[in-house]
Amino acid sequence: MGRSYQIMMLENKVFSCFVFYSVLLVIKMYIIAIITGQVRLRKKAFANPEDAQRHGGLQHFREDPDVERCQRAHRNDMENIVPFLFLGAVYSLIGPSLAVARAHFLVFFLFRMLHTLAYLCVLRAPTRSLAYVIAQVPCISMAVQILAAVSSYACSDFIGDRFNL
Amino acid sequence: MGRSYQIMMLENKVFSCFVFYSVLLVIKMYIIAIITGQVRLRKKAFANPEDAQRHGGLQHFREDPDVERCQRAHRNDMENIVPFLFLGAVYSLIGPSLAVARAHFLVFFLFRMLHTLAYLCVLRAPTRSLAYVIAQVPCISMAVQILAAVSSYACSDFIGDRFNL
Amino acid sequence: MGRSYQIMMLENKVFSCFVFYSVLLVIKMYIIAIITGQVRLRKKAFANPEDAQRHGGLQHFREDPDVERCQRAHRNDMENIVPFLFLGAVYSLIGPSLAVARAHFLVFFLFRMLHTLAYLCVLRAPTRSLAYVIAQVPCISMAVQILAAVSSYACSDFIGDRFNL
Repeated sequence: MGRSYQIMMLENKVFSCFVFYSVLLVIKMYIIAIITGQVRLRKKAFANPEDAQRHGGLQHFREDPDVERCQRAHRNDMENIVPFLFLGAVYSLIGPSLAVARAHFLVFFLFRMLHTLAYLCVLRAPTRSLAYVIAQVPCISMAVQILAAVSSYACSDFIGDRFNL
Repeated sequence: MGRSYQIMMLENKVFSCFVFYSVLLVIKMYIIAIITGQVRLRKKAFANPEDAQRHGGLQHFREDPDVERCQRAHRNDMENIVPFLFLGAVYSLIGPSLAVARAHFLVFFLFRMLHTLAYLCVLRAPTRSLAYVIAQVPCISMAVQILAAVSSYACSDFIGDRFNL
Repeated sequence: MGRSYQIMMLENKVFSCFVFYSVLLVIKMYIIAIITGQVRLRKKAFANPEDAQRHGGLQHFREDPDVERCQRAHRNDMENIVPFLFLGAVYSLIGPSLAVARAHFLVFFLFRMLHTLAYLCVLRAPTRSLAYVIAQVPCISMAVQILAAVSSYACSDFIGDRFNL
């Protein structure tokens, strides 16, 4: 039943910690999508003629700066949170210490929350850009540590192949 | 060789079920990309001047409402199917019953298929929006169940840290 | 501690090989984001009024063809590299031979690098489109192999359910 596997996975505290913050970030992305929909309804600005027609007529098939701001926030999340979901999961497998790993996840989580806040509430520049840059630091750190961990295997594979080991 | 691991993973029937629907959804996204390309060729509307020049001249470097519709469908898929790939994989590890898990995956799969159909075939509103909302239900459900499963570990970590257990 | 699990995972040479190329592709996506930011600063074309105001005034709150080119490259990466991160991880679990798996990953990696190069350096059409198509081949191949591997489990699940096995 793969039961033993599941227990192993959840007993990996680093992985559980990663999952905790990741799911919160995914929910945050869902909330941006809901906000986008609410702004569309409030400003009466729809991306599709069939939606506009249902809400008063084709004149509401139009763009709106507030809607576009939500979309940019969502797009930036996609470009940054999705790679984190991958890097964080793999990073959990290379055996980092719990304290160091949690620091990575927490910094990313907090500064991506700030990024969204800065985007949607139009906080003064460069708050948003700074939040983006700081959240990238743990991602780059995880990427480098993962490459260091697997490159030894990758190299031994390669040498193994060459010498038919 | 990790062989035992692989067998464990595939013997996890919930995970296999998740993978089955996920891969179909990924293929669906690839098909949207192919359709977008076909619409570009048919309507002669290219996003890049170098493509336009190859297909008759710079006047074809332009936007087109049908192309934009395909892109919106694809974008919405990215924003919803990609988080599902993460949530579903983690959900498979927290030991749900196969019947309940399959219901989650199947609802998401069917309503995301309907969403794409409603988008590309311009079905009457609010078909597309309803499909979107219903497909979100299993995602929110999985997110909540995952948080409940890992927060006990996360909390015990935290308490463990504090008391040096 | 999940230690044994981690070792199992990293001893899966196919998985390590997949992780190696995947992380390089994620870093490539981060680099596109950095390039986009640099082009924005150089061309003075900002997506947000608050950024424009910080860099000389609201007249810089505008679109720019070079910025949009970077964004298209990034978007295309999101649409293709993110599904690869999922397919490649699952493919690593179904026990392919290392040589075949590495060929899949390497073809995808090389042609996605060429795709970005062709996009950002405006290489003559159809270089970019060809790179896209060739990089899709290993993805489709992995998708088909995964479906073949899990459908037997999915079917046995289904039969098991029906007959209460």
